[in-house]
Amino acid sequence: MNQNPIAIAIHGGCGMLEEELRNPQHWAAVRTALSAALQAGWRVLAAGGAALDAVEAAVVVMEDSAHFNSGHGAALNAAGEHELDAAIMDGSDLRAGAVCAVRTIRNPVRAARAVLEQGDCVLLCGAAADQFAERCGMAPVPNSYFTTAQRSAALAALKARMRGGSSTLASEAERHGTVGAVALDRAGNLAAATSTGGFNNKAPGRVGDTPIIGAGTYAANGVCAVSCTGQGEIFIRHVAAHEIAARLRYAGQGLAQASEEMVFKELSGHGIGAGLVALDAAGNVAAPFNTNGMARGWIGADGVAWVATHAPLHRAGDQG
Amino acid sequence: MNQNPIAIAIHGGCGMLEEELRNPQHWAAVRTALSAALQAGWRVLAAGGAALDAVEAAVVVMEDSAHFNSGHGAALNAAGEHELDAAIMDGSDLRAGAVCAVRTIRNPVRAARAVLEQGDCVLLCGAAADQFAERCGMAPVPNSYFTTAQRSAALAALKARMRGGSSTLASEAERHGTVGAVALDRAGNLAAATSTGGFNNKAPGRVGDTPIIGAGTYAANGVCAVSCTGQGEIFIRHVAAHEIAARLRYAGQGLAQASEEMVFKELSGHGIGAGLVALDAAGNVAAPFNTNGMARGWIGADGVAWVATHAPLHRAGDQG
Repeated sequence: MNQNPIAIAIHGGCGMLEEELRNPQHWAAVRTALSAALQAGWRVLAAGGAALDAVEAAVVVMEDSAHFNSGHGAALNAAGEHELDAAIMDGSDLRAGAVCAVRTIRNPVRAARAVLEQGDCVLLCGAAADQFAERCGMAPVPNSYFTTAQRSAALAALKARMRGGSSTLASEAERHGTVGAVALDRAGNLAAATSTGGFNNKAPGRVGDTPIIGAGTYAANGVCAVSCTGQGEIFIRHVAAHEIAARLRYAGQGLAQASEEMVFKELSGHGIGAGLVALDAAGNVAAPFNTNGMARGWIGADGVAWVATHAPLHRAGDQG
Repeated sequence: MNQNPIAIAIHGGCGMLEEELRNPQHWAAVRTALSAALQAGWRVLAAGGAALDAVEAAVVVMEDSAHFNSGHGAALNAAGEHELDAAIMDGSDLRAGAVCAVRTIRNPVRAARAVLEQGDCVLLCGAAADQFAERCGMAPVPNSYFTTAQRSAALAALKARMRGGSSTLASEAERHGTVGAVALDRAGNLAAATSTGGFNNKAPGRVGDTPIIGAGTYAANGVCAVSCTGQGEIFIRHVAAHEIAARLRYAGQGLAQASEEMVFKELSGHGIGAGLVALDAAGNVAAPFNTNGMARGWIGADGVAWVATHAPLHRAGDQG
């Protein structure tokens, strides 16, 4: 008897630096980090574990990597501080957990998972969420744990450009980098998780689509799981992740059509950078983006891992 | 030539006290407050104004009334403080604004409107949102401005019951009271707004469905406008307001069917109190609720105002 398919797809944000601005070793390192995240999730699924555990495991690896805008390596806000958002959703029963504007949680997706498990709330914000995570046994880190030299330099450069009047907006590459994962487990359960530092020079208190169930993160068994990256305000206004699910459920669209229409028509219509990864109930993957690149990867039923930062797909493990 | 229809519907929360626990004068006063909110919104629409202005005007009246759980009269959290959430959405262009966990903004819906107009963010949280409102010219109020003797007594009574082990949950009547409005203007624009204090004894930092676009608040021209009340976590998990819109748009359902299925099937299936008001593009009203009552009212194309707290509808102005 054939086993049910398992699959995982991840992203490390759309809006990449141009490929020629970093050497090949840099991009190979990013792909290695993506592979590690993919494998962390895949190991859970291959052992018969839950999609919910798989997406959490994959996102934790990316939160801990300085290559992505979440956890360590997160963007700095206009006050030179980090405020982090994360969400996780279990498609089997629509349970969800999210935190926003947290400052001392090393792995915000773990705090989101604890909110989901605790069950009283779906969304906790600010210092109360930091304190909740600590009560759940997560040792707090100083806000400076999240800071990397690259993010500090990017904020300083942007502020200098703004003072010079040459630019008031961050480039796409400075704006994005959110991480996320979607997974399908052997039992047919879908799950999604997303985690972000927001964007360089964002206003303190600003919350994007990442922790908003239905906007940046959504999963429903039998339909799809979606994790988004890009200018979050537009994803919120379009309730983007849930809209994709609604088109699958009610409009007769397939995953590729619904995902691509959302990115290339609805979201691109606002002139923003946008991308997402999505899985349907059969394990099909969609990973559309309208920017010059999106850190991404997936493993489908055949167990082959693919990762990429810009256009070409690389088989994971290939360091070329 | 017939003019396009205009319409407004409001709610002041589901989960009412049993009618016999207060005298008829009390309920007449609640209906009078509902009528004032309805008329504030209707005046905008009748003068050819925007649905967005109408829903804001109606919600401001309810925020200022001690009868409802928003603004003055808001519920107290477990720390004995107020943390308020609000959102507003313009169906004509899907612009939206929201604030969560704010403490010093007299009219949170006005701050949400300012977020919408400012355009950089959709959701601002916590002290940063309070400061944003002040920068927008809204004089801050002390957190105690929101407190009423009734809410203080309700929190004390609940804490006493919890100490006695007789109840760990607030009654439905203590949990809800969120206010909201939906409107259709002469130009065919739909809008929605919602504002809340959350519920009695809620955890600090807890954010419900009210400020989550797609969950407690949603509007899209040509489809519908929705504002929800009830246990917000379940509305978030179902992306309730946007799901109603999706069923109208893609599943061939009418407003009544989609709204009633959401309340009586999807949300009631979790054993929670739930209600909402919704308007479609033709000005049809739906106001389903599964509790013993929902403060509510509407004015349709004929200009007749109806208000109610429990089952019977009262023509507004009738003090009986």
